[in-house]
Amino acid sequence: MKTIHIGILGLGVVGTGVADLLTRKSRLLASRTGAHLNLKTIADLDIDTDRGIDLSTPALVTDAMAVLTDPDIDVVVELIGGHTPARQFIMTALENGKHVVTANKALLAACGGELVETARKNRVDLMFEASCGGCMPIIKTLRESLVANDINSMSAILNGTCNYILSRISKDGSTFEEALKTAQELGFAEAEPSLDIDGHDTAHKLAILNALAHGMEINLSDIHVEGIRDITPMDIEFAKSFGYTIKLLAIGKRHKDHVEARVHPTMIDNTNPLSHVDHSMNAIAIDADATGKTMLYGHGAGMMPTASAVLSDIADIARNIIAGSTGRVPILGYPQENIRHIPILSMNELMTRYYLRFEAQDHPGVLSRIAGILGENKISISSVQQQGRNASGTVPVVMITHVAKEEWIQRALGRITETDCVIKRPMVIRIEDEEAQ
Amino acid sequence: MKTIHIGILGLGVVGTGVADLLTRKSRLLASRTGAHLNLKTIADLDIDTDRGIDLSTPALVTDAMAVLTDPDIDVVVELIGGHTPARQFIMTALENGKHVVTANKALLAACGGELVETARKNRVDLMFEASCGGCMPIIKTLRESLVANDINSMSAILNGTCNYILSRISKDGSTFEEALKTAQELGFAEAEPSLDIDGHDTAHKLAILNALAHGMEINLSDIHVEGIRDITPMDIEFAKSFGYTIKLLAIGKRHKDHVEARVHPTMIDNTNPLSHVDHSMNAIAIDADATGKTMLYGHGAGMMPTASAVLSDIADIARNIIAGSTGRVPILGYPQENIRHIPILSMNELMTRYYLRFEAQDHPGVLSRIAGILGENKISISSVQQQGRNASGTVPVVMITHVAKEEWIQRALGRITETDCVIKRPMVIRIEDEEAQ
Repeated sequence: MKTIHIGILGLGVVGTGVADLLTRKSRLLASRTGAHLNLKTIADLDIDTDRGIDLSTPALVTDAMAVLTDPDIDVVVELIGGHTPARQFIMTALENGKHVVTANKALLAACGGELVETARKNRVDLMFEASCGGCMPIIKTLRESLVANDINSMSAILNGTCNYILSRISKDGSTFEEALKTAQELGFAEAEPSLDIDGHDTAHKLAILNALAHGMEINLSDIHVEGIRDITPMDIEFAKSFGYTIKLLAIGKRHKDHVEARVHPTMIDNTNPLSHVDHSMNAIAIDADATGKTMLYGHGAGMMPTASAVLSDIADIARNIIAGSTGRVPILGYPQENIRHIPILSMNELMTRYYLRFEAQDHPGVLSRIAGILGENKISISSVQQQGRNASGTVPVVMITHVAKEEWIQRALGRITETDCVIKRPMVIRIEDEEAQ
Repeated sequence: MKTIHIGILGLGVVGTGVADLLTRKSRLLASRTGAHLNLKTIADLDIDTDRGIDLSTPALVTDAMAVLTDPDIDVVVELIGGHTPARQFIMTALENGKHVVTANKALLAACGGELVETARKNRVDLMFEASCGGCMPIIKTLRESLVANDINSMSAILNGTCNYILSRISKDGSTFEEALKTAQELGFAEAEPSLDIDGHDTAHKLAILNALAHGMEINLSDIHVEGIRDITPMDIEFAKSFGYTIKLLAIGKRHKDHVEARVHPTMIDNTNPLSHVDHSMNAIAIDADATGKTMLYGHGAGMMPTASAVLSDIADIARNIIAGSTGRVPILGYPQENIRHIPILSMNELMTRYYLRFEAQDHPGVLSRIAGILGENKISISSVQQQGRNASGTVPVVMITHVAKEEWIQRALGRITETDCVIKRPMVIRIEDEEAQ
C-alpha cells in the first residue's frame, strides 16, 4: 500500500481536528483510499500545550520550513489562517511541488488567483473544501456535480456566529449586544467578533463560491458587505409580522453581462428553506437551470465538521496521486483559460424590495410627507405598519416597498433624513422573495 | 480537444433531458471538462415521436446493439429502467469495455453487486448519481466527501410522489385517494403508482445508500418496507397536535454489528429539518461522527434535475478518461475487497417509539383494558389523546409510547385486536425523535 505523507501547518482548533481524524481514522481512510495517509509532521509555534488528542506519531516542530522543505511530504495542510505568514507558506509549498489543502477563505478571497496560478505551474493540486460551508461539500458540488448547470443564483448562510445571534434575537428578544455576549460565552463568537458580525467572513466565502459557480475570477473588493450590528429585536418582530425571517445572506446572482455579489441582512419568506436554518447552522441554496432549487445544510464551522472537509480534500489528493491524475479537476472548476472577468453589479443599480423602518415624529402629516418623498423617487409601497410609540416619543413606521432601485432608495432616505419627520436615518433591510427575484 | 462519444439507451423523460443537456450545453461542458462530449447515438424503440428537443446530430436507432457494439462509443447511458432488458444491456456495455452511467435504482438494488464486479473486471467506470435523490449529489458525497466519517444514521425523503401526497393530505385534509388522484393529474404520480406509494422505490434507493455509507454489500431483500396507503387525514391531524409531521422515510442506522434499514411512514419532530420538506421535494439527512447533522435538499426526480445528475457522472467519466484515471474512486466508495456483509436488524428487534391509533368501542373500561395489555407487554405510554367520536360510534384513541421493542408492540396489538375493545387492528406509525435515537 502506498504511503502518502502529510504535514500540517497550524495546530489550532481545526488543525487538531485534522490530526485527530488522520490518527483515529487511519484504518477507515486506508480502506477507502487504498493509501496509508501518514501524518508525518505538525508545525505550530506552540507545540507544548496539550490538545487532548494522541500526537505520539507525528513529529512536532515549531518551524514551518521543516514541513515545507521535507522531500517526503506530499501534502501540506495549511490551517494557520490569515495572510501572513500563511500566503508565503502556501506559495513555498506549491513551489516545492507539494499539494496544498487549505481552509483559508480570507487568503483565497484576497489572492486566490495567484495561488491557483502557482499550483497550476507546479502541477500540484490546491484544494479548499473547508474554506466555505464547513462540512458541506459545496466546493465539490460546484466543481463536479453541477457541471451541466448555469447557476442562476446562490443564497447562503455562511457564518454561524451571525446566524446564532440572529436566531437568538428572534427566539428570545435579546438585543444584538446581549446575543453577541451569549454567543461569545458559548464559543459561537470570537472575542474579537468583527470579521464575522460585520460580514467580511461571509464575503470571503461568497467571492470563492461566485468564482466557482460562474467561471469568473475571484473578486472580493467589489462585493458589497454589511453586517448585523444594527439589527434590532423590533426589526425581527416586524419581519415576523410580514411572514419574513432576517438572515445574514451571501447573495450571488447571474445576469447576462454581470453578477450580483452582496452580503447583508436580508428578509426572506418563511416558506424559503433558509428561514428554518437556525442556531449556528449554515446552508447554501442554489437555483440552477437544470437542477432547479437545491440546498446543502450543515455545520459551517467547528473542529470536526471543518476537519471532515479537510479530510475529503486530502482523500481526493491521495486518490489523484494513486491514479496519477493530479489536476484532474481544474482548481476553480474551469480550466484557467476559460475563466473570465465578469463585473459585479454596482450596488446603486440593484433592483430589489426593501423594508424601511422610520423613527417618525408623532405629528400630523409626517406619514404623508415620507410617502410623498418615496413617491417622488419612483418608490412604490406595498404595505405599511405603524406600531405603538417608542420611549422617545417617536413612532416606528415600517414600509415594505415593491421592487425599486437601490439608488432611488438611498436618495429618498437621504432626503427624508434631512426633514424633521424622522429623528435618524431610517433602517433599510433588503428583501429576497418571489417578487424580488 | 479530445472527443468522447456517448450513446443513450432509452429516450423517455430522463433520456430526453440528457440528450437536451448534451446538445444545448456542449460548449459549457467542453469548457469545464476539456473534452467534447459528443452524443453519437440514441437507441429507443420509438424514434418517431417528437420529443420537443433538437435531435438533428445524434443517430437515432431502434436496436440497442448499435450502441453497445459501436467501437467509437466510450460511455453508455442506460435510461430504460427496470430489469429486462436493462440488465443485459449494461452487462454487454461493460463487457465491451464501455463506461456506464445509469439511473436504474431497481436494477442496482437487485443486482448491483454483479454489475460492480463486471465493471471492475473490465476496468471501466460504472456511475449512478441519478439513481438516488435526483439532482442531489448524495452518491458523490458518500463516496468522496464523507470519507473520514462513520455514518451513524441517514433519514431520507426519497420519493416525490409520496411526499407530495402526504403534504397534500396535511395541507388540505384530502384523503389518500384524493391526494393520489391530484398527484396523478399533476404528473407527480404514475398511472400505476404502487412502486412509489408502497415504498419499494424508496427501498431501492436505501439499499444503494446503505451500501455506500457503510461499505456493505447491497442488500434489498432484508429491508422492511411499508407504504403510505393507510395514512389518514386523522393521523396527520393527531401528528400535528403532538408537534410531529408524517413523512415516508428511508432510515439507515449503523450499530456495532448490524445496520437498521427500513422504509415506512414516520412521525418526525417539527424541529427536524426534514419536516419542512414539502410538496414533491426530496431530502437526505445524514448524521456522521465528524460532520454532525447535515442535509441535502432538492428535486428527487423530474426530467432536468435527474439529467443534471447523469451529466455529472458523464463529466466525471470524461475527466477520468482525459486523466487516465478510470476507477480512481471505487464504484461503491470502498475497494471491493473491503466491502463486508453487514446484517440488517430484524424488524422484531427494532427499538423505537410508536404512535398507536385505536378505533375503540365507546364503553367504560376500554381504555384501561388497552393500557393494561400494553403494560403487560412492557410498553410504557408517554401520552394519550382521545378526540370526538367517529360516525361509526367508535372513539379514536391515540397513544404515544416510550421506546419499545417492535416485537412487543406487534404482540400487544394482536392481543388488543382479539378483544372487543377495538373494531379493527390499530394503526401503527413509528416515531423518530430525540427519545427514539
